[in-house]
Amino acid sequence: FVNRPSIGTFPGSDWTERIQSSLMSIIPKGLHSVTTMACGSCSNENGYKAMFFWYRARERGGNVDFTEEDITSCMMNKPPGCPTYTLLSFDGGFHGRTFGSLITSHSKAIHKMGIPSLDWPMAPFPHYKYPLESNVRENKAEDQRCLARVEELIEQYNKKGSPVAGIVVEPILAEGGDIHGSNEFFAGLQAVGKKMGSALLIDEVQTGGGPTGRMWCHEHFDLPEAPDIVTFSKKMLTGGFYCKEEFRPPHGSRIFNTWMGDPGKVILLQTVLKVIQRDNLLQNTKVTGDILYQGILELENRFPHLINSTRGKDRGTFIAFNGVDSKTRDAIINNLKHKGVQVGGCGDYAVRLRPALIFQPRHAHILLDRLQQVIQEL
Amino acid sequence: FVNRPSIGTFPGSDWTERIQSSLMSIIPKGLHSVTTMACGSCSNENGYKAMFFWYRARERGGNVDFTEEDITSCMMNKPPGCPTYTLLSFDGGFHGRTFGSLITSHSKAIHKMGIPSLDWPMAPFPHYKYPLESNVRENKAEDQRCLARVEELIEQYNKKGSPVAGIVVEPILAEGGDIHGSNEFFAGLQAVGKKMGSALLIDEVQTGGGPTGRMWCHEHFDLPEAPDIVTFSKKMLTGGFYCKEEFRPPHGSRIFNTWMGDPGKVILLQTVLKVIQRDNLLQNTKVTGDILYQGILELENRFPHLINSTRGKDRGTFIAFNGVDSKTRDAIINNLKHKGVQVGGCGDYAVRLRPALIFQPRHAHILLDRLQQVIQEL
Repeated sequence: FVNRPSIGTFPGSDWTERIQSSLMSIIPKGLHSVTTMACGSCSNENGYKAMFFWYRARERGGNVDFTEEDITSCMMNKPPGCPTYTLLSFDGGFHGRTFGSLITSHSKAIHKMGIPSLDWPMAPFPHYKYPLESNVRENKAEDQRCLARVEELIEQYNKKGSPVAGIVVEPILAEGGDIHGSNEFFAGLQAVGKKMGSALLIDEVQTGGGPTGRMWCHEHFDLPEAPDIVTFSKKMLTGGFYCKEEFRPPHGSRIFNTWMGDPGKVILLQTVLKVIQRDNLLQNTKVTGDILYQGILELENRFPHLINSTRGKDRGTFIAFNGVDSKTRDAIINNLKHKGVQVGGCGDYAVRLRPALIFQPRHAHILLDRLQQVIQEL
Repeated sequence: FVNRPSIGTFPGSDWTERIQSSLMSIIPKGLHSVTTMACGSCSNENGYKAMFFWYRARERGGNVDFTEEDITSCMMNKPPGCPTYTLLSFDGGFHGRTFGSLITSHSKAIHKMGIPSLDWPMAPFPHYKYPLESNVRENKAEDQRCLARVEELIEQYNKKGSPVAGIVVEPILAEGGDIHGSNEFFAGLQAVGKKMGSALLIDEVQTGGGPTGRMWCHEHFDLPEAPDIVTFSKKMLTGGFYCKEEFRPPHGSRIFNTWMGDPGKVILLQTVLKVIQRDNLLQNTKVTGDILYQGILELENRFPHLINSTRGKDRGTFIAFNGVDSKTRDAIINNLKHKGVQVGGCGDYAVRLRPALIFQPRHAHILLDRLQQVIQEL
């Protein structure tokens, strides 16, 4: 802990073992390797790079040699060295605030205002009517509308010389307002990507590490195959990304920087993972989440003029509901704080719950009790 | 150390004091405040953002309100919300490998290959003939050639609707081959920026923290006034940037992310700064550097057919020399390693020295002795 080593250049002799016993022990099914990074933004940006490298290799029939023109042009920021590839992201999505990740973020204007960007495609993400059971047909149509638009945009950008190398998406659009997509939507998204030749990156920076009751939120989707890249940070303490073998860069030094993450954070993660297992915290999060979800749903049924759209069923404690307007939402958050409960807001109307994995049923009951008081007093 | 806090949202109660006694105690003259970040790339990128915000405010006569059109357009990555502003950087410069910092990096093709970029201006940086004393007139002309090109490029990009909000430059182009600019060049660069309305960011990620014998390399330049922004990382253990008061963002949450650096690294820095002062390490670096520089210069005079262009006079131990070709350079680095001395290469021909601040005269003499052996055995 009393140093900041450059892991890429001088990895400690225990580095492999530490990675194996931590990050590799929870690698999502179907993925091959992991790269550590410092934060969520640069985890995503390096995942983006991996997709661009993969796309170029495919475009050139597997040839990964550089031409003289590649080398000269890239030093001047020009194609073919710096290609005009793009990534498709979603309205309401958030992937970070460094320049590259910011191109794909569309949740708040204040994040993007005044900063140069690139013309990359942005698709609509499904916005469901709740409760889901009563709106099956409409929500299915919403999935199809969004998927059709994704395909249309990829076709359009491919045609105009800005081919879409990959799709980047959160399993739950968290900053954008805890917007959930159905399993069918995500399977459809993967299918469209495969059909159009675009990779799929799932950004688990906010959802990864257990809050949905599984280590990775996308496990809930039961996708036909693994996404190509999964990124993480936050709860994982270290940033980084997992990828399939064919997404490992074809040359050394292409996914690289001075620090390559921070071994100290991986040491913390080792212990965190041990505690998650020892105390069965994923199961705890699932059980606690079910109580929270049911409790909030009951409040919604009692106070439909104040809150609605409770969501996050079977997603552990990763639960949100809407105030009927921003003012009501803000009042709920503020009044809860005065009662000693801290919750956050996201999007325009959402109250989002993000308790730690050690949040237990008894805590959930206290939260529900105080939330009821707050809503009654509105 | 056993946590990774979100400093921006929940700063510790000791945070202000820790910053005051560390980063603020060594703030470059003429600068006003500091922002911590995780790494060098995101320190630069957030410095870039600060310049873009400043430029927009000036362009709009100090009005920092957002128009409806700003808000709508920025969510789609389009102007005026996401303006077509640019930054001028230098051929051979390096500022990081996240997407934004990479646009301004031009030292190695492998860094940029296959990654989409933007058309931002790249100017030539002076390449001097050594020894400097024997090439005064030519090198002065080289300064003027590069400064003229900087001005020309800014004019050209301003005219074509991609105004140059700022100039970004390292005090020594380190990754590019330890390329030094004269004090006159840097003063001229600042003057051109002021004339054209572009800000000046000096990237001290590699030079900052003492290796040039002063805390900040740009102090050597005796600029008429402070640069607008100074970025740091590496030796400073924490990333971040200093800026003038008018470069603080005009609204909250515009320079922001989850972690905002890492308090653990600032705690390390506090002790590092104490030791630098206690052991007089800046003075040590200056004295040791003078010995190294003189010694290498003597070797150059004895073996001009093998090495040349010794540089870094009065720059502490931040010293480099060239092999006559890449093969000779690589052999020197490799053979030194076999004699227990680790040095690095940068650019095409340079051997660069980057000892720690505790490298003392007696170490310098050992290095010089082994370097002489290696050169004699070539």
